[in-house]
Amino acid sequence: MSRRIEPYNHQEKPLLVVISGPSGVGKDMTIARLQQLGYPFHFVVTATTRPKRPTEVNGVDYFFVSTSEFAEMIEQGELLEYAVVYGDYKGIPKAQVREALASGKDVVMRIDVQGAATIRRLVPEAVLIYLSAESEDALVRRLRERKTEPEDQLKMRIATARQELRRLEIFDYVVINAEDRLDETCRKIAAIITAEKCRVDQREINL
Amino acid sequence: MSRRIEPYNHQEKPLLVVISGPSGVGKDMTIARLQQLGYPFHFVVTATTRPKRPTEVNGVDYFFVSTSEFAEMIEQGELLEYAVVYGDYKGIPKAQVREALASGKDVVMRIDVQGAATIRRLVPEAVLIYLSAESEDALVRRLRERKTEPEDQLKMRIATARQELRRLEIFDYVVINAEDRLDETCRKIAAIITAEKCRVDQREINL
Repeated sequence: MSRRIEPYNHQEKPLLVVISGPSGVGKDMTIARLQQLGYPFHFVVTATTRPKRPTEVNGVDYFFVSTSEFAEMIEQGELLEYAVVYGDYKGIPKAQVREALASGKDVVMRIDVQGAATIRRLVPEAVLIYLSAESEDALVRRLRERKTEPEDQLKMRIATARQELRRLEIFDYVVINAEDRLDETCRKIAAIITAEKCRVDQREINL
Repeated sequence: MSRRIEPYNHQEKPLLVVISGPSGVGKDMTIARLQQLGYPFHFVVTATTRPKRPTEVNGVDYFFVSTSEFAEMIEQGELLEYAVVYGDYKGIPKAQVREALASGKDVVMRIDVQGAATIRRLVPEAVLIYLSAESEDALVRRLRERKTEPEDQLKMRIATARQELRRLEIFDYVVINAEDRLDETCRKIAAIITAEKCRVDQREINL
């Protein structure tokens, strides 16, 4: 659903913004930096069954849950979208998104490319941003440097990233997250959100 | 024409940006402030037969030309678009726009709503921004305060502004230029330009 803007009775509608892109491109770092910079968005805390990394905090970076807890959330219809990503479940708690939108806040969620495609289908008016490295070499280097996956999983992620580039047409925007240019990435994402709020045909989110 | 973005061979294409809106909304002030703030855009200098206002500078604010000089420019096909606006001719020098785009700069031009409609037809990939006052009362107040028109012309401008609201659908964006919020207006215009450069389907301008 979209509706025509009326300048003299203008009320900005909150947006649903998806930040996606290949494994290793820096989705988590980008979200963390946007939070640090104090942008007034609601950042969705994803539920996941993947093990917590040392620097991560439960309830802040993710909700770290057991596989049976995750199964219960699916059962109860509590997830807007969920998927198995490299063997771990990840899902978006529906209630959290609804409440944030109802309070008038723009909602920003991090999600893999497979999940972004699902959101595009479920919520056509979502704003989909694809984060890209500046080159495939740069992406591979970053994946190797973070040393969170064994070599065989790493190869799988590189192959997947290559495949996912073909799905670019489901996205609205591409932002190049170049090495050491994280603030520029954040500035561009904020600009996209500002611009979307000025569109003549405004997006209206219904969950 | 639009073309799909290729993240790994990404080259930003320059945009053609039209800033339009009713008489009195602050198009000239907005352009002047964008220039002051140092945004790296090429600001088109419009040719006009209207008399110079005391604060304006020839070649900076407008090219002030005689009616016969203007007729010559039309004759030679030198104008991208021209129109009679409240009895005065205004036109966009084509060569200036071509040269700026060729140098890779985003081109920003100020143009009345009638002219914006022409640009939409001639250059479908242009980015059209409609500047709006926060209310009709505010617009009328500003028109009265600037005291550049006699009362009968002023009434005509108010009636025209009301009519022009119906043509909002030719625009991509609406930016509310509220009283004393000029920098916010400029920030939003800059955000729109940044966002447009990140679109998956990039606009490609052919003049």
